[in-house]
Order: sequence, then C-alpha cells, then structure tokens
Amino acid sequence: MKSLNCAVYDLIGRFAADWPVAGSLQVGAIKAGAWFCRRLCVSSGIIKTAPPLWRLCHLTRDFTTMSADLKIVFATNDNALADRLISRMESWYPHVSVCKLDDPAAAEAEVAACWYPPEDLLQRCPNLKLLQAISAGVDHIGDALLASGVPICRVVDEGQKHGMLEYVLWGMLHYQRDFDLALANQANKVWKLHPQRRPGRMRVGVMGLGQLGGYIAEGLVSFGYSVSGWSRTDRHFDQVSCYAGEAEMTEFLANCDAIINLLPLTPATDGILNASLFERLPQGAVVMNCGRGEHLNEADLIAALASGHLRGAILDVFPKEPLAQDNPLWTTPGVVITPHMASSASGKAILGQLVDNGRHVLEGLPLMNLVDSEQGY
Amino acid sequence: MKSLNCAVYDLIGRFAADWPVAGSLQVGAIKAGAWFCRRLCVSSGIIKTAPPLWRLCHLTRDFTTMSADLKIVFATNDNALADRLISRMESWYPHVSVCKLDDPAAAEAEVAACWYPPEDLLQRCPNLKLLQAISAGVDHIGDALLASGVPICRVVDEGQKHGMLEYVLWGMLHYQRDFDLALANQANKVWKLHPQRRPGRMRVGVMGLGQLGGYIAEGLVSFGYSVSGWSRTDRHFDQVSCYAGEAEMTEFLANCDAIINLLPLTPATDGILNASLFERLPQGAVVMNCGRGEHLNEADLIAALASGHLRGAILDVFPKEPLAQDNPLWTTPGVVITPHMASSASGKAILGQLVDNGRHVLEGLPLMNLVDSEQGY
Repeated sequence: MKSLNCAVYDLIGRFAADWPVAGSLQVGAIKAGAWFCRRLCVSSGIIKTAPPLWRLCHLTRDFTTMSADLKIVFATNDNALADRLISRMESWYPHVSVCKLDDPAAAEAEVAACWYPPEDLLQRCPNLKLLQAISAGVDHIGDALLASGVPICRVVDEGQKHGMLEYVLWGMLHYQRDFDLALANQANKVWKLHPQRRPGRMRVGVMGLGQLGGYIAEGLVSFGYSVSGWSRTDRHFDQVSCYAGEAEMTEFLANCDAIINLLPLTPATDGILNASLFERLPQGAVVMNCGRGEHLNEADLIAALASGHLRGAILDVFPKEPLAQDNPLWTTPGVVITPHMASSASGKAILGQLVDNGRHVLEGLPLMNLVDSEQGY
Repeated sequence: MKSLNCAVYDLIGRFAADWPVAGSLQVGAIKAGAWFCRRLCVSSGIIKTAPPLWRLCHLTRDFTTMSADLKIVFATNDNALADRLISRMESWYPHVSVCKLDDPAAAEAEVAACWYPPEDLLQRCPNLKLLQAISAGVDHIGDALLASGVPICRVVDEGQKHGMLEYVLWGMLHYQRDFDLALANQANKVWKLHPQRRPGRMRVGVMGLGQLGGYIAEGLVSFGYSVSGWSRTDRHFDQVSCYAGEAEMTEFLANCDAIINLLPLTPATDGILNASLFERLPQGAVVMNCGRGEHLNEADLIAALASGHLRGAILDVFPKEPLAQDNPLWTTPGVVITPHMASSASGKAILGQLVDNGRHVLEGLPLMNLVDSEQGY
C-alpha cells in the first residue's frame, strides 16, 4: 500500500512538473490536488469521473497515515540551490523526507543529493547508501568521497544535452559566420564583409565523447560541420573522425579549426587546455571550454591569444565562480565570458533521477548513470 | 557538335567549382585542363585512360574553332563584383561570351546578369531576352525594368538557404540563451546567471514564407522553437502556425518573442517594420531584419529600443550600404549591425543558373525561378 501511495504522489508531482506555469502556481495546484486527494479518498473511496488530478488520486485511500519511503539530505555548499530544490521536492514528492545537512534528521538520511558536498559527509550521515550528484559531472564530489565505495550517480538529461548543443552551436556560428569580427567592427563603426564560409569548411573537434560530447558531435554533424572527436578510449560515431588517447592527440588537434572541451575533470585532464595543446592547433583556431575551469591554463590561453595564434575563446566555467573582478580574462581581446550558463539539468530531471535512484538503491535494483569511481566519470 | 563542346566545357567548369582550393589555383587547373583538352583532342582523338579532367575531354575534338553559344552582359553598379564574376565565368564557362556594360559587345548581349542595373538597360542592350538577377531578391532591378515585359529570374540556392538559417539561428540563440546579456555584462565585469530558457518557450515569427522563409521556419521548428509565420497569401508548413494578410497580422505579432523579416521588398512591404508593428509585439521582443533595409523604419526602431519595449535587434541590411558613419544605429544599445552578410548565393549557383537560364531562353525552354513581375518576387 505504501509504495502504491508513493507511486500516486509521484505521478501527481511529475504531471505537475510538465505544466508550463510559474513555480508558485504549480505548487498551489499541487497542494490543492493533494488536499482533494485526502478529502475525497478518505471520505468516499473510489471516484469514477473527475479531472486529471483527481483521477490519479482515486487509486489510493489514506495519505494522512503514510510515512516517508525515502530520506534524502541535500549536501551542498550552495544554500540557495538547496532551498530551491527542497521546495520543489516537497511539492512534487511530498512523501519523501528531505533535509539539509545542519538538520538533526540528516543523520538518518539514506541518500545524499550532492553539489560540492563536505569531505566529512559520511561521518555526518553514516546511513548513506547513495551519493547522487545533481549534475552531469562528479568532480565536485571530491577525491575522498569518490574513493569511499559508496555508489555515486550523476544526472543525464536530454534537455541538458540540447541546451549544451545550443550553447556550442552559438559559439560555432559566432566564428564560422564571423559574428565576432562583426561585433568588433561595429564598435569601431567599420563595415567589412568577409567571405561566407560554409559549415563543411569548419573543422570542429569535440574533446570528450561521453553522453554530452557524443550528442554534441552528432548534432554538429547534422548541422553540416566537419566533426572529429577525441576521448580517452576508442569511440565510434557516424561521420565523426574519432581519435583516442595521448598518441593520437597531435593528429586530432592539427585538424581542428575549433575545439570544444567537454571532458570530465580528472587528474589526467586537469590543465589539459594549455600551451602545448594550443600550439598544436592550426593558426587562427578557437577554443570553447564547457567542461570545468580547471581544464584551462588561463595564462597560456591569454598568451596564445595575444600572439595571434588563437582567434578567440568562449569560456563558460572557471575554477572559482563567480569569476574574480581582477581576473584578466574579463578584458582579454577575443575572450567571451559566460556565467556557467551553457546548460544545466532541469529540476524535473534532477529530482526525478534522485528519487528513482534512491528507491532503487534501497530495493537493490540497478542504478541509473552510475559513475566508475576509478575513472571519475 | 557545338552544344557537345559546350557541355564538356561546362562539366569541366562545374567540376572545378567543386574543388575546395583557392580561386587562383582553381583557375590554373582549369586552364591547364583546357590546354590538355586542345592538345590531346586535336592530335589523337579518343583517349582511353586518363585522370578525371582528361576523361571529360575525350568527348570533343576541336575546341579552338568553337564560337560562343551565349552572350551575357553584367549589368551592375558594383564594378568589383562584375569583375569577380566575369573572371570566374571565363574560367568555368570559357565558351560563353561575357562583357560589361561599357563594352561595345554589350549591344549584342542576349542575357543581362543584374545587380542594380541601370534604368536604360534595354536601350543600351536592345537584344536582351532575359534579365537574370544574381540574387534571391529582385527589388534592385527597379520598377521600369520589372514592368518591361522581359522575363526576370532570380537565384535560388540550397547553400544560401542554409547560410540564412545559420545567421538566423545565431540570432535566436543569442537571445534565447541570453548571450546578449552575457556580452553586455562582461563589458562591466558582471557575473549574472539567467534561468535557462528551452527553445520551445521562445516563440519566433517568420515574416515571408517563400523559398527562404519556408526553409527558415522549418529549420527553426526542427531545432525546437515554437514557430509561426506570416505571409501575403495562405501558406502551410508542418508545425508552423501560419497567418496571412493584414487581417491576421495583429494576432501573429502578439505571439512572437522574436520576428525575422524575410519578406520581399515591394510597395506593400516598404517600411513594414515600423512603430505600429513594434507596439503589437509583446514587451521584450526582438527583431531581426534579413530582408532589405527599406523594410525598416530606423527611427521607430530606435524609439522602441529606447523605451524598453523591444529587447534588441539584429540588422543585416540597410537602404544605403555601407551604413553611413553618422547613422545612430551603430551605437544604439541593443542593436547588432552586420555587413549584409546573412547569406549570399555561391558563385557556382549564380553562374550555373545564369548560363542554364540563358540557354533555356534562347531555346524556348522553361525558365528556372521566374519572377512574377506584378507581385515583384
């Protein structure tokens, strides 16, 4: 009976998550829906004809006596983010118990929703059976927790993939179609037409061919670009020239007018966007960093731009965010700074995968998007 | 025999047009190819085994005695453009006679390749049987020539359509994903993240649903945008809400977060992007003008941006190009100026359609992309 109740509440929550209305209205609708559930189900049992929310509710009888089926702690250094997610969690999954780390209930938590969790998380929450990153990357979990043996999962979201393609495509078009030159010329009231370059003449290399990178590579192919990819191990995608490992890095780079970094951050990829990499790119190449700030050696990038070897760079991620006021990247000619906006998973995907994986770990079922803690992704 | 020779030369020319090499190298290769043709064909007749260029050539025997099969005059106010196209014409179609307007041979021309031709073109070239615009639009032909009764054709090029989609997509992503705000914030070293908007929440309206507009509307649908379209007469495209005529304009505009102008320039559309149109758009909408400069009332746009009613505008076309140094649009906040770069037909498409239509008109065959001179497009 309990899991049936949970399933009904989930259905209501997910149904609401699909409504294209503002947050408060959605929450109000859910609360009204839950109230009707309780009233109608307790008093009359089964309802034959009702609007959609009611129809979901006739499956169950007594929500008032239901206890939480899953206990989640939000373990993050970002208090506002935790509050936002907890508020949605309480609306969409009202029977799941949620708390923050400083709540005494945290000691009972079975699952931690993680974004830069504290190193001593497992000491503070000894009952944890799953660390669920609320992001595509898991580097923020930290080495100690990555090596702890507790299963770690990450979020994979179709909407996030498309959002990343949007960001990357803006960047590719920015250079392929010379919008960077047009904007710079406008500042000087200069009218200068450059020959139109077809996308097939623009060779783009995607670094990292996982869930996100593979999606980006295929999306760029379908838009007409000449696409290659580089990854730690061999990968295969239609119409993408795939290179693997350090041995093939130089050949990969020599054929890229643009590179897009989507690698996971690991000891092997820390600082990979450096002078040695830039100098193996053709003259006039551009760099986009959508991975992590730590992938990039900022001083090497500034030097490669100043020398004229690189044409430009689009940077979305930085080791410390927000980017410090005195960071020279803000004003380096050719650099576009965006505020870690490339793409995030939706709240719906984050919370849905958190709850599903939480139940799965309690019931001994397979976990979605489980991370290989040795590889770190 | 003559038309066989022409066909062979055309093949060589078009083959060369596909080579991804620089112009001078391409011209050199063609000249070498033509030289081999003459040498080999005259002396030995049929060649059994040879590289591709030679293989094309064994079909013919005596190029040296061949006369021009088509006489074309380039009628334009842009001398550099004429020189560029004539140079390619002589390489790719060496048996077609080409000249400029000031050449005595112009009086004999059968076809005029037009880009802002002079009003007295037909007096100077009384033998003209076709006016072939070297562009997608024909407004530059001028009212007198449009009404002259001489057939007028325009260029339709798949590459140009894709190029326009690239331009428009950059613009849509620019606003959907808040790159305009990111660039403005970077100038002030401000780090500010805006909620990520999915493309389906961005309602874009395409004005003009002809060859280009229809392609753009479908391309934006496939990228996930909510697309509507407006045109003079009823049109139908899958997943595009189509509106027609003045009667449906207000409803169309009320549902557009962005509009993209791809209308032809006619007396009915001159100045259509004006205060009355802007005020029917929702607060915060954006405008892209990829049609003609004359579609836009510049003062009305500047006022609508200054009042905060419009968020931004991307302008590619202007009544007088280059845009004058003292034009206030250069420095109007929210305006992106690009140098009429959105998309042009390739030289290959322009010259191929010019020669094909020229032959067709001489032989009484149907013309490609014939313009309805009453509608003006």
